[in-house]
Amino acid sequence: MFWSVLGTIAAICTTVGFIPQIIRGIQTRELRDVSPTMLTLLLVGCSLWLTYGIHLKNPIIALANGFTLSFVITILLMRSLYKKRTQERNDHR
Amino acid sequence: MFWSVLGTIAAICTTVGFIPQIIRGIQTRELRDVSPTMLTLLLVGCSLWLTYGIHLKNPIIALANGFTLSFVITILLMRSLYKKRTQERNDHR
Repeated sequence: MFWSVLGTIAAICTTVGFIPQIIRGIQTRELRDVSPTMLTLLLVGCSLWLTYGIHLKNPIIALANGFTLSFVITILLMRSLYKKRTQERNDHR
Repeated sequence: MFWSVLGTIAAICTTVGFIPQIIRGIQTRELRDVSPTMLTLLLVGCSLWLTYGIHLKNPIIALANGFTLSFVITILLMRSLYKKRTQERNDHR
């Protein structure tokens, strides 16, 4: 029981951990310092973890990675959008 | 066999994924856009995953999270260092 709770808290922390990054991005409209290679590797990694979790029929692994994957994709899309906007602003100067 | 390989590749991606962030930080000397709340939650989460992995005697979970933990701590320390330097530069202006 204790260990399942600990594993669940661990999964929640590493999943919801990406939400503050999304909030910070929305507030500052800047995600330049966040490595796109990191985001791409996390995208591939979480997709594989999700597949592995579904195969193992382990809801914690599957759900945690499903959510993390959606957050990572969101950050990646936000980063591209902000980068494009910054470039457009610079082009108009 | 296929599934163990897939799980291992998943673990490698979500672990080494943080290395490009460290490299980018060293190159640009800026980690301002990386959320400190995200890093703190990942630090707590990875510490718990590491404990859980040791308890389960699962080397993949333990090793992957041990490495990720060390990378997250590195990024957190680099961020504090760069922030301090930027503040000192601004104070001298």
